Parts: sequence; structure tokens; C-alpha cells
Amino acid sequence: MAEAPTDLAPAAGLADGASAPAAPSAAAEEPQPDPARLANMLQRLSEIAGDGQAAVSRLAYTPAEREAHDTVARWLRDAGLAVRTDGMGNTYATRPGRRADLPAIAIGSHLDSVPQGGRFDGTVGVVAGVEVVRLLDAAGIQTDHPLTVIAFSAEEGARFGEACIGSKAVAGVLQPGDLQRLRDGQGVTLAAALQALDLDPRQMPTARWGQGDLAALLELHIEQGRLLESDGKAIGLVEAVAGNTRLRITVRGRADHSGGTPMHVRKDALAAAAEIVLGVERLANEPQRRTTVATVGRLDVAPNSITTVPAQVAFYVDVRDIDGDRQRAAAQDVLTLAQQVAARRGVLVEAELVGDSSPVVLPLWLRQITREVCERLEVPYRVLNSGAGHDAAILARVLPTAMLFVPSHEGLSHCPEEWTSISDIAVGVRVLYHAILALDRALVAQAA
Amino acid sequence: MAEAPTDLAPAAGLADGASAPAAPSAAAEEPQPDPARLANMLQRLSEIAGDGQAAVSRLAYTPAEREAHDTVARWLRDAGLAVRTDGMGNTYATRPGRRADLPAIAIGSHLDSVPQGGRFDGTVGVVAGVEVVRLLDAAGIQTDHPLTVIAFSAEEGARFGEACIGSKAVAGVLQPGDLQRLRDGQGVTLAAALQALDLDPRQMPTARWGQGDLAALLELHIEQGRLLESDGKAIGLVEAVAGNTRLRITVRGRADHSGGTPMHVRKDALAAAAEIVLGVERLANEPQRRTTVATVGRLDVAPNSITTVPAQVAFYVDVRDIDGDRQRAAAQDVLTLAQQVAARRGVLVEAELVGDSSPVVLPLWLRQITREVCERLEVPYRVLNSGAGHDAAILARVLPTAMLFVPSHEGLSHCPEEWTSISDIAVGVRVLYHAILALDRALVAQAA
Repeated sequence: MAEAPTDLAPAAGLADGASAPAAPSAAAEEPQPDPARLANMLQRLSEIAGDGQAAVSRLAYTPAEREAHDTVARWLRDAGLAVRTDGMGNTYATRPGRRADLPAIAIGSHLDSVPQGGRFDGTVGVVAGVEVVRLLDAAGIQTDHPLTVIAFSAEEGARFGEACIGSKAVAGVLQPGDLQRLRDGQGVTLAAALQALDLDPRQMPTARWGQGDLAALLELHIEQGRLLESDGKAIGLVEAVAGNTRLRITVRGRADHSGGTPMHVRKDALAAAAEIVLGVERLANEPQRRTTVATVGRLDVAPNSITTVPAQVAFYVDVRDIDGDRQRAAAQDVLTLAQQVAARRGVLVEAELVGDSSPVVLPLWLRQITREVCERLEVPYRVLNSGAGHDAAILARVLPTAMLFVPSHEGLSHCPEEWTSISDIAVGVRVLYHAILALDRALVAQAA
Repeated sequence: MAEAPTDLAPAAGLADGASAPAAPSAAAEEPQPDPARLANMLQRLSEIAGDGQAAVSRLAYTPAEREAHDTVARWLRDAGLAVRTDGMGNTYATRPGRRADLPAIAIGSHLDSVPQGGRFDGTVGVVAGVEVVRLLDAAGIQTDHPLTVIAFSAEEGARFGEACIGSKAVAGVLQPGDLQRLRDGQGVTLAAALQALDLDPRQMPTARWGQGDLAALLELHIEQGRLLESDGKAIGLVEAVAGNTRLRITVRGRADHSGGTPMHVRKDALAAAAEIVLGVERLANEPQRRTTVATVGRLDVAPNSITTVPAQVAFYVDVRDIDGDRQRAAAQDVLTLAQQVAARRGVLVEAELVGDSSPVVLPLWLRQITREVCERLEVPYRVLNSGAGHDAAILARVLPTAMLFVPSHEGLSHCPEEWTSISDIAVGVRVLYHAILALDRALVAQAA
């Protein structure tokens, strides 16, 4: 962490390019995102379940996540917006439009993190929504459509093994049975986690969006990859979001004394798991699977004692691809490999499908609007795919969505070293602001 | 566990071969070990930090281990023996001999367990000592040498990475610096663990045995291997105890988002560790290392999140051999392999030597006495080596020691399925009782 830039802190020396006052003529027409304000909001959020340095562990459906939602809700109420929370913990704040008959345009992202995660994943998109409201207020602009800023709950799959729980609920993808099916590492069900936070799991069906509630959703997010930084681009326009197949694999061998047990009679669950871990990596590296990535990020050994041959190892395999067929084929190949290893070693392997989402191509016409904004503002951009899943990809099933990426330093994400400069975020907010205005106009023109 | 025999419980139906009354003529001369009493003592101990079924997690230097020592101390006090505990938590109970000028003969083993361990490892040897005292009382025998029953503390290396702490202290092998050097998984030092139990780490030097304090030590223990059961032998006479080299290896890679990070730029600490785990297994399986066993029993992943490429993996390698050169060569080969994996994958590997003990050959003359007892009693026996380390192997540096093994069902140990029948234990106690008497006579004859 020591070497990571830290212009996040709202310190005197924070100002970078974007904080320089714009030329007076432009400033009169166009209010600029305020870097100090953005840095301050991100800093405040990073202090909720932060470690005092750069790591944030604000897991899905924990009091810390609720505190982050409450904090953002306060900012939005202070800006004069009406704020509400649905039964799944998603927070909505709406700025009225000129025309009450039009559906709202939404800006949304999430506020939870992985364990020992970073300060930018998700929060950047929510904070951008708050700042866009301020920019509209500063410019004295009322859009035709209402504008709704949304903080989705539980986007990270780290706790329950299922990602985007909040957005899946509003999209009608989550089923009532999932409330009991989904459990965290301690065995807490999703329903119990909601209840512990005074959320009402029985309200899940009411959280679902109706047809036409919203016109479109834009999500600003950090790239979590290296393309923008290495290409020298400020903005990424997302074409496709990778799908994701998640398996939980449990290898059952036999506990034995590490000294008294000859090698040839062992049933070592960890050695078997190690073979599968390497097989997952090898599969994803095969040339014909260019766009596949596969990861074993979590692995737990039992009894995990120095002098006992491991009896059981449970681990998760996370397979992603922008090609759905390749994604499912890779997951199937992992299962086949695991069974081969089990048969050869005389251990048992159980595999469970804990999550499966298809790749999503985001609508061209909406990307076209964001592209024209970048060109008009002369902001360097490129079109790219997202390996990470996002709320906007889930919501693309029920309404038009677009994603804007800002650069991730060295592509690092889901770790304390995750970092995007405030000036890069400010550029993202500026593009988002103009995209909202352009979309507002385009939708009115379409309807006319 | 369901399929494991459970004659441990002191139930009415417990009686097996050994509990049948001996022929009257023999019984008059020789009191027999009482299976119900043995089962009762083992049952009582298994309830201390037991899970109510068969698993015991009575780790070194925990209140549970102390409770087990206190329980055994109470039994020995009830038998009229003077009991004391040294600064390292070893418990001693001495039955006076006819000749106060002679050093004591000792029976000893340990009362701690690995996490989720079994009910017999260590406890059998301590309970045997208690029963031998009862047999001597029943026979009205006072030995020439005093008899000391010892419960050593902290034999299992599972908590501190170092095995046989109690016996190493009395043998002068443990150094004062080890009190701060040795730490458990939570970072608790050995000194702090002792203090938390009202033991005084500063008393470590006073725990050390003086020259001639004890004449010899016999340890009865479960085999933790399959040889006795598959050979149909009741008793194993240990010739050599394997040495043990323990490494802690930490692999440092880089945390990255599991979706956003292409395979070729990852520095996956778990994939690197998996290669080393398999390398450890492969090395131990090489034909030229016939007697080497090597195990990775404990492995911890950080941040251990489904959607994060693992940044760090720490694991322990446990290498054992009855040939010290092969043992150290295997550990060195593991280090070389780890460095090769690190260099190829661009991760960092740190290795620390956390324990190293040499193989020990136990003295022939003492084994000869136990062999003659087996032959005289017509108990089927065999000479074998021990892959597991034992207090008696540590103590062989400072006094003559011998080990008697009783069969382990299917060789299982360090797990809840660990099981030895009470009748097999009773045979072991009977051989131990006669070995003590024979040793007492032999030492007197030697001196004469």
C-alpha cells in the first residue's frame, strides 16, 4: 500500500488537472465536477469498514454496507431529493423531471466490497450520481425525465457466492427460494441476513421493477483491467459484459497422521484439490479459449492441521467469458477434470453450481449516445468488454443500460491497491453528466 | 464416525476378550488390567474439549489441556501418589520405591490433541500409567525404584508448529528464546500462552531434568499406522522414530479481480502453492526415498475471496524419515522446487524452518527387556519404526527410553475415526506392567 498514490485524502495538495478552474467562458455554461468533493465522498465511504489505510471490507448485507447506504442517502436528502429503500436494501433518490409522465433515467452502482477490497469499486458510480445531481443544481437544469440515483445492495458475490443480489431482485431474476438457498460461509441464509438488518425478505417481490418504471440506466465504474491505462484512454464504453459460472467443489479424502501414514495409502484431499486448481488454470490458458478466465479465489482445508493429511478441501471456481458457450464448456471441463482426479486418487468430489449468468451485449444505441458525448467533449475513449460482472449487465435484461469505465491503475481491483485518480473520476463524472443530458434529449426526441 | 466401533463407552456390553476373568490360578498371582476402568478413564478424557461424538480438539497449552492434566492428577492423588506440575505444565506423580537412593522409572505420554483429533493418541499412554499403579497396588508390589507417571504437555505441534514442547523443555532441548519465537496461528507466543494458564515461563530452566533423576522411561502409544493390524500383532516394539523437518512457506502473488484480469498477467499465489503442494507429494513418492513421507496439512489463502485472485498463501510442509540425511535432502528439495516455481511464475516465496528433529534409534537393551516380556506372556509382537514423533524419542537424548505400540484400527490417527479397542489397550497395559517389573529387576541386577 505504501507505494500506492493516495490523492484520495481531501488534503490541501490533492488538486490535479481536473481541479484547475475551467476557462471562464466555459465555466459559465458548464459546471465542473469538484475533485475535492468527490475525494471527500470517497474518503468518507472508505472509512466505513475500512482498515484506516486502503483496505475496505464492507461485505454484502452487513451493518457496514447499510451505513454506507445511509450515508449516501443523507447526502442525497441534503440535496433535496426524496429517498427510499426497498425490501432488498436498494436505495433510490429521485430528482423530479419537468414531465411527470416520463419514466426516470437512472444512475446506479453499489456500495459493498469484497473482503480486503478497495475504495473505488462500486462507490465511484454512486458518488458520481450524487455529483451529477449537484452539477444539475449548479447549472439550474431540470431534465425532462426524472433522474434517479440508485445504490444497489449486495453486488459482490464474495459473501453469498451470488453476485448482484440487489439488482437481480429488481430485475425479477432472483427467486423467493434463493432467500433460503443462498448462504454465507457461516451458514447464514440471505433471508436471515436481511432480517438481521431490519430488512424484510418477504418484500422481495415488491422490490421488482414494473415495466416502464425507468427509461434507462447508466453505470460509471472503474475498469478493473489494464486496457484504458495502457491505451492512454480516459473512458471505456462497454460493449459486452462477461458471463460467469461459479462452482463450489468439495473434495473428501481421509484424515491421517502425517508421520504414521505411508504415501501410497493416503487419500490427501489437498493434493487432489491442488491438481484441480492447476487444471482450472491450465484450461483457461488453452489457446482456443482466448477470452476465458478462470479462478480459484477461495479454498478452505479441513482439519487444516500441520500433522494431519487433509480430510476435506472446499473451493470455488469462478469461470468467465464474453462467449456463453465457451463459458459453459470451460465449467463443464473443470467438472470432468475434477472427476478424473477423484477417480485416480480414490477421493470423492462433489460439485455444486452456485451461480450462472450469461454474457450480455449492451444496446448499441445507448452506447452511441455516450460515444458522441466523448467525441464532443474531446475525451479519449475506447470500446471494450468487461470481464467483471456489473449491476448494469443484470439490468440490461429489463431496460437499456450503458456502462462507462474509468481507468484502474495497473488494473488492480478487489484489493487495497485498487486505485483511480480523482482527476480520472472527475472526467468520468463529466462524461456521465453530459450523457444524462444527451439521453434526456434523445428520449424526448424519440417519443416525439 | 457412525461405522467406527464404539466400545469406548463404559457401557454394560463393553466386555471383550480382555475383560474375561483370567484363570483362577493366574489371577491369584497377577492382577489384570480392568477394561471398564480403562474405558472409563479414556471416556472421561475424551469429554474434555470433545465434540460429544469422537472428535477431540484439546490443543497444546489451552485450558482444556490443563483440565485433562488436572483430571489425571486427581486420579493419581486418589491412588495415594504425590503429584506436582513443573513450570512448563508437565505433571508428575511418584509412587515411592523400596530404595530411596535409586532414580525413578517413568511411564509417560501426553494429553493434548490436534484440532479435530481422536481419543487415543497420547491419552492411552497416560491412562496406562494410572492403571499400572493400580495393578501394583492390587498385587501389593513395591518396586525397588520409585515409579513416576508423567503427563507431558504440548506434544502435538499443531498449535505452535513445534512438537513435544513439554518433553523438549525437560530434556534441555528447548531454549529460552523459543518462548518468544514460537507463536500460534493467532500470533500468541508460547510465553503468553503459558502465562494465560498461570504457568510461569521463567521457570523453564527449572523444568529441566537433572542427570540421573530418572533411570528410564517407557511410553505406551497407539501405532498411528497399519502394520500391527495387518500383521495380526498385539504389540509393536519401536526400533527407530522418524525425524521431522518442518517448513513454513509463504507465497506472495498479487490480488486481482477474477473477472477483469487476463490469465497471462496474473500472479496467482494459490496456483503457485498448488504446484508446490503437488511437488511435495511427488518428491516423497520418488522410489529412492522409500521411507520419506511429506505432507502439506495446513494451508491458508488470503484474501480467500471467490472473486479475487489469491494474493498470498501460507502453508506448512512436514517431512519425516527414519534416515536423517534423506529427511534433510527432501526438505532441501522442497525449497529448491518452491524457488523454481516462484521464479517461473513471478511470485515471491519465503520459507522458514519451523522445526527440525533427527531420527532416533531407541536403545537395544531396553527393547530387549520389552521383547522378553512379550515372549514370556506369549503376546504376538513385532519390531517396527515410528513415523510419528513422540516424547520418548525426544527424551532418548537424556535417558534410555522404550516405546510400546498398540494397534490403530486402519491406521487412522489425528482424526475422529482414530480407534483402538479397549482389549488391545489392556494387552498393552499388561505388557507395560510386566516391563516395568522386569526393568526394575534388571536395573537392580545391573547395579549389583
